[in-house]
Amino acid sequence: MRILVLNPNMTDAVTQMLLAAARPAAAVGTELTGLTAARGVPYIASRSEAQIAGAITLEMLAEHHRDYDAVVLAAFGDPGLLPARELFDIPIIGMAEAAMLTACTLGQRFGIVTFTTTMGNWYQDTVDTYRLGARCAGIRARSLAFSSIENVQAEREQAIAELSREAVEIDGADVVILGGAPLAGMAGRLRAQVPVPIVDPIVAAVKMAETLVTLAPRKAQAGTFSRPPAKPTHGLAAPLAARIEHLDENRVALAPAAQ
Amino acid sequence: MRILVLNPNMTDAVTQMLLAAARPAAAVGTELTGLTAARGVPYIASRSEAQIAGAITLEMLAEHHRDYDAVVLAAFGDPGLLPARELFDIPIIGMAEAAMLTACTLGQRFGIVTFTTTMGNWYQDTVDTYRLGARCAGIRARSLAFSSIENVQAEREQAIAELSREAVEIDGADVVILGGAPLAGMAGRLRAQVPVPIVDPIVAAVKMAETLVTLAPRKAQAGTFSRPPAKPTHGLAAPLAARIEHLDENRVALAPAAQ
Amino acid sequence: MRILVLNPNMTDAVTQMLLAAARPAAAVGTELTGLTAARGVPYIASRSEAQIAGAITLEMLAEHHRDYDAVVLAAFGDPGLLPARELFDIPIIGMAEAAMLTACTLGQRFGIVTFTTTMGNWYQDTVDTYRLGARCAGIRARSLAFSSIENVQAEREQAIAELSREAVEIDGADVVILGGAPLAGMAGRLRAQVPVPIVDPIVAAVKMAETLVTLAPRKAQAGTFSRPPAKPTHGLAAPLAARIEHLDENRVALAPAAQ
Amino acid sequence: MRILVLNPNMTDAVTQMLLAAARPAAAVGTELTGLTAARGVPYIASRSEAQIAGAITLEMLAEHHRDYDAVVLAAFGDPGLLPARELFDIPIIGMAEAAMLTACTLGQRFGIVTFTTTMGNWYQDTVDTYRLGARCAGIRARSLAFSSIENVQAEREQAIAELSREAVEIDGADVVILGGAPLAGMAGRLRAQVPVPIVDPIVAAVKMAETLVTLAPRKAQAGTFSRPPAKPTHGLAAPLAARIEHLDENRVALAPAAQ
Amino acid sequence: MRILVLNPNMTDAVTQMLLAAARPAAAVGTELTGLTAARGVPYIASRSEAQIAGAITLEMLAEHHRDYDAVVLAAFGDPGLLPARELFDIPIIGMAEAAMLTACTLGQRFGIVTFTTTMGNWYQDTVDTYRLGARCAGIRARSLAFSSIENVQAEREQAIAELSREAVEIDGADVVILGGAPLAGMAGRLRAQVPVPIVDPIVAAVKMAETLVTLAPRKAQAGTFSRPPAKPTHGLAAPLAARIEHLDENRVALAPAAQ
Amino acid sequence: MRILVLNPNMTDAVTQMLLAAARPAAAVGTELTGLTAARGVPYIASRSEAQIAGAITLEMLAEHHRDYDAVVLAAFGDPGLLPARELFDIPIIGMAEAAMLTACTLGQRFGIVTFTTTMGNWYQDTVDTYRLGARCAGIRARSLAFSSIENVQAEREQAIAELSREAVEIDGADVVILGGAPLAGMAGRLRAQVPVPIVDPIVAAVKMAETLVTLAPRKAQAGTFSRPPAKPTHGLAAPLAARIEHLDENRVALAPAAQ
Repeated sequence: MRILVLNPNMTDAVTQMLLAAARPAAAVGTELTGLTAARGVPYIASRSEAQIAGAITLEMLAEHHRDYDAVVLAAFGDPGLLPARELFDIPIIGMAEAAMLTACTLGQRFGIVTFTTTMGNWYQDTVDTYRLGARCAGIRARSLAFSSIENVQAEREQAIAELSREAVEIDGADVVILGGAPLAGMAGRLRAQVPVPIVDPIVAAVKMAETLVTLAPRKAQAGTFSRPPAKPTHGLAAPLAARIEHLDENRVALAPAAQ
Repeated sequence: MRILVLNPNMTDAVTQMLLAAARPAAAVGTELTGLTAARGVPYIASRSEAQIAGAITLEMLAEHHRDYDAVVLAAFGDPGLLPARELFDIPIIGMAEAAMLTACTLGQRFGIVTFTTTMGNWYQDTVDTYRLGARCAGIRARSLAFSSIENVQAEREQAIAELSREAVEIDGADVVILGGAPLAGMAGRLRAQVPVPIVDPIVAAVKMAETLVTLAPRKAQAGTFSRPPAKPTHGLAAPLAARIEHLDENRVALAPAAQ
Repeated sequence: MRILVLNPNMTDAVTQMLLAAARPAAAVGTELTGLTAARGVPYIASRSEAQIAGAITLEMLAEHHRDYDAVVLAAFGDPGLLPARELFDIPIIGMAEAAMLTACTLGQRFGIVTFTTTMGNWYQDTVDTYRLGARCAGIRARSLAFSSIENVQAEREQAIAELSREAVEIDGADVVILGGAPLAGMAGRLRAQVPVPIVDPIVAAVKMAETLVTLAPRKAQAGTFSRPPAKPTHGLAAPLAARIEHLDENRVALAPAAQ
Repeated sequence: MRILVLNPNMTDAVTQMLLAAARPAAAVGTELTGLTAARGVPYIASRSEAQIAGAITLEMLAEHHRDYDAVVLAAFGDPGLLPARELFDIPIIGMAEAAMLTACTLGQRFGIVTFTTTMGNWYQDTVDTYRLGARCAGIRARSLAFSSIENVQAEREQAIAELSREAVEIDGADVVILGGAPLAGMAGRLRAQVPVPIVDPIVAAVKMAETLVTLAPRKAQAGTFSRPPAKPTHGLAAPLAARIEHLDENRVALAPAAQ
Repeated sequence: MRILVLNPNMTDAVTQMLLAAARPAAAVGTELTGLTAARGVPYIASRSEAQIAGAITLEMLAEHHRDYDAVVLAAFGDPGLLPARELFDIPIIGMAEAAMLTACTLGQRFGIVTFTTTMGNWYQDTVDTYRLGARCAGIRARSLAFSSIENVQAEREQAIAELSREAVEIDGADVVILGGAPLAGMAGRLRAQVPVPIVDPIVAAVKMAETLVTLAPRKAQAGTFSRPPAKPTHGLAAPLAARIEHLDENRVALAPAAQ
Repeated sequence: MRILVLNPNMTDAVTQMLLAAARPAAAVGTELTGLTAARGVPYIASRSEAQIAGAITLEMLAEHHRDYDAVVLAAFGDPGLLPARELFDIPIIGMAEAAMLTACTLGQRFGIVTFTTTMGNWYQDTVDTYRLGARCAGIRARSLAFSSIENVQAEREQAIAELSREAVEIDGADVVILGGAPLAGMAGRLRAQVPVPIVDPIVAAVKMAETLVTLAPRKAQAGTFSRPPAKPTHGLAAPLAARIEHLDENRVALAPAAQ
């Protein structure tokens, strides 16, 4: 199966880190492709950046969704996830969502740790959106200095380990989630330093994408994720406009049957 | 005080309806200015359209926020509201938010009625985001046909009245909110047909904007709506880029002190 | 419009403080009248005092409601608010309610600070009654000494500022509400000392009253705030008895039509 | 032990019905005394009547509390319960509260049935106050006609049985609570007509009062039900004024030690 | 009335402590009989031990339920309570459940203290099962050393008192529950050391059992505690097998009518 | 990786159905082994049966856990899941849990359908235990007749499809979960008859087990799923006794290091 790892951040080095963490976890037959945003910000770290990145995510999906069986939205916080799920037909998984749902099997309450306080505020919205507040022990966010975003985990391992232990000891977390794409692949190195299981969101997300492709769910024709009716647009990126206007559907109708 | 009524939809006729409903409600000294989105969709009616419109809202705000004391985000569902509140310094009010909070003073549980089922799904997210689910009796959405968006209320008055009565009789709503900008100004005509108070969101929003300007709250320097640190951007509309990069702040620093 | 600022406390000096804080906030055309309780306690500070004060509030309303377009119930904690809303036809707003609802537009979670622990317990009930617990970061109450109730803010400004900062730093409040009528008008002086917006409840309440008068909601004929059927009474204050017995309605029926 | 059955309604016939239902349930050694309100309304059936009755309850308690080991507040809806618990030292139990807590041992979700819709609204507040909403399947209220309040159960047995069955079949109640003092003693007659357990609130309340007297809890010196500090009063009934002003305490201090 | 105090722990000394604490609290005419588990663990202190003990509880009940009017399940945490309530016809009360429900009449929020951290985890599940989280200030568990389980209270009185005070001062508990059967009878000795009421769960449970026998509820024929249909079994203890297979019912059908 | 599909029911035909549904979903390299309970009931369908089956699950796990990398607890309702997670070191997944968590990625609210009302009651407890009530649209349970448990899906396909459609149309479910092991493998056949995605719990559970083995979480040394201290036992199955007494750990200590 073909899974797109869509990074709505502009930093390709982070996309490569995500792929490096994800590939060993993928099942035989799973093919992972990375895609990095061509516009936006180097690293999404606030609600306003996530609002913009979510719109960019829809643009990227509109251009690429027909080439994949599922998509991993590879920014913790999942910008654009619910809108994408409504607009497109294939399974789309968020890293934050997959990490939280998976963490629920490893503890009664998960803690999330991350490296800027602004991200912590945004992540709290994410927990609430998924109505998982009763399973969340808290979010530990501290604004840590780093030379560049792809170096956070190398430079701040000790601080991340400390935040993780505080999540356990102070907040009562039974399991820790490393929030933020730049922490991908770090869970193993922290294993001996934190007394509870640690979830690496990109691994959880890729496995959840595999699960959904295996379940092969039909596109909802009813309920909250059924596709909105066609709508005219103006000034949007062409593939996204076509998707919203249901033009791509017409085009596909000429081609051999899909889905 | 100067209040911007920012309509992230592209239909100027709806902006005019909003202003027509709002002006009689405004206090002496309140000056209302309408602004209609130059790109996007004629009428936002789904989560995906709201994701895009929310980003467009930030673009519009970045260009215009310095000319106003407060902004009413004039699409029920409030696309981009929390991100905007984080990114800008002046009070920004959503129509859905203001309508729900005001309705809380008129009943223990409010009902929302609207004219497409897709909007109902999106509005449910909005109720949850504001954690007002315990005050919401339900959302009554039915996909009603209409000739053009600015004619919904004229053509479907009877159906909207019927949905409102169902909200009271079946869902137990103590107060009804007319969801969707195209229903602006309709509350008065329904008054005799519905046995509970009706809230017109644009009126609630303009009054809440006046309230906040009067309170003159300082911009948060702590907590969830403090401004994110400066961040480089690429490929964004220039004023929005400047705001995210804190360039507009520098520019202002040359001028006489603001705030 | 005529708004009654009904103080169910017996301290007229506090009523004057409330009016002094409210008047600059009122819109052109809003006329504020103060009314101080003639019996009860100098300052309501517990559930039992609030139970009694709520009954006195109903007596005061029964006597005066026909002369006003709306009422602000000017004791934080809102004694008698829901009963009053059921029994009378005009909009009635509580200071605590208006402050919390307004604070919801300035932060995800509000903190309340006050100057006696007993009041804190009562305020917690109030938060729960409005089902706003998910928006409340906490209540910071400390029993502060003061010479007389109208001097609390002058004498204890530093302690109130400190409690406000603790609400932000320890509880995670995004916005602070100054709980208790004797703190009316204090928000401005604390502005520089607290890093988040501060809500002055009397200002929020007067503006919300203006909003409701502008919306001109009909009296509910269904739902939770419809008027109870007539009931005989014994031993109650005459105007309140008349209201409960629906006698004032009969009397009004002889006069030219009201509302 | 001496238990006061305090009926804040003015209808002595209802007090007698309550005692008649309670006496067979009382343990050996429990002495029940009835007390009927001397002012107020014949039967409390709304929030506004409950506000007034709650204040009258405090007056009655101030006069009589020293002669009893515990008090049953014998109006379903429990007017004045939390204030009373704060102000007095002996255990005070509400009929609604005791019925709900007891019902929790007989089903996962209880239903409440009652005979006026206005009472249903008030009872909903009561469920919320006790934060038992997650245990409540719903409140079934229908405004039934009756000749006088003490005849409701005789005249409307069939309608009450029907509401009870609807609570089970439609709302999913596992256990039914008969809400309203005039239904005291009716549970036995409905037993064969309703397929789940039925709770008679006065029985539950008297037994809970016995439980608390047996536990002999100390008066809280901390937390939400510790006694408020002394406060001057004006225009209140003398015994209540003395209690609030801590004058009765002084008086007692002259007598041999109590409590 | 005959009440079985069923201790699913194997330590008979604890059963005797429970009876000693319960007997003075029982009403005239209440006969308490103790029963100690013949297999399992000396003292249940974790979820896994509770899973096993709950099955043993069902075995014990199947053998003895016909000889009693009600059963107190005398292990805090209530192993097997909901299953038992479904399978048997007489009232069955859990110590944790009765303690929490009773505590709700003594404070807005209760705290639970106990002497091993593993028990604290299990108790949290219990609070959640009863959906009483909104009434729970927290669980204070510390793993205290002791010579044998029946000596915990004698040896660790000071530590238990300290935990109780922390529940009040740090967690904000209004009332304290002593969690764990080995603390039965200890409440009186702590009374002077803790500033809020203390609930002894065995007392609360015996009184609640008396309440239910007095209410004489019918066995549910609908809802969540109606008896499951007959089912074949293999390898279960004979009386339990007979109960599940509805064989005991057949046997009873030959005897004079029961219930 | 080796995954044990542990069926705590005694019907081997159901185990085979589970394996048949699971095997096509398993990744390359995943080896699934079935295990059917040797005692208990043919099919668990109530809380009391689940209590017993949960204890039997622990016995089965104690005997077999060292031979597997993870366990799927293959009875919807997950009897013994949380206790097992505490007592053993490898990942253990429940079918109900995995189905619900996976369904959360396909809709905002899931519906569960099943074929006996008693199971519906038990499943509701399960939803609550996982604190996923806010994501659950409802449980649709109807007691359907069938010749034998392994024939339910063949004989009652139409009724299950109808319940599924009711879950969507009446309850508002966005995704449907087929509750109960005997419905394993049925999702595909219902696909065209139900307008939303359908989750087959055994597929979700096997994929989640693969996910957890891939994540390779450490055994918790802190928090709610750390292993309870050693405890003596009496009368339990030998391997379970050894696990609780930490004897198997000692035995392992003599062998070459494990985990």
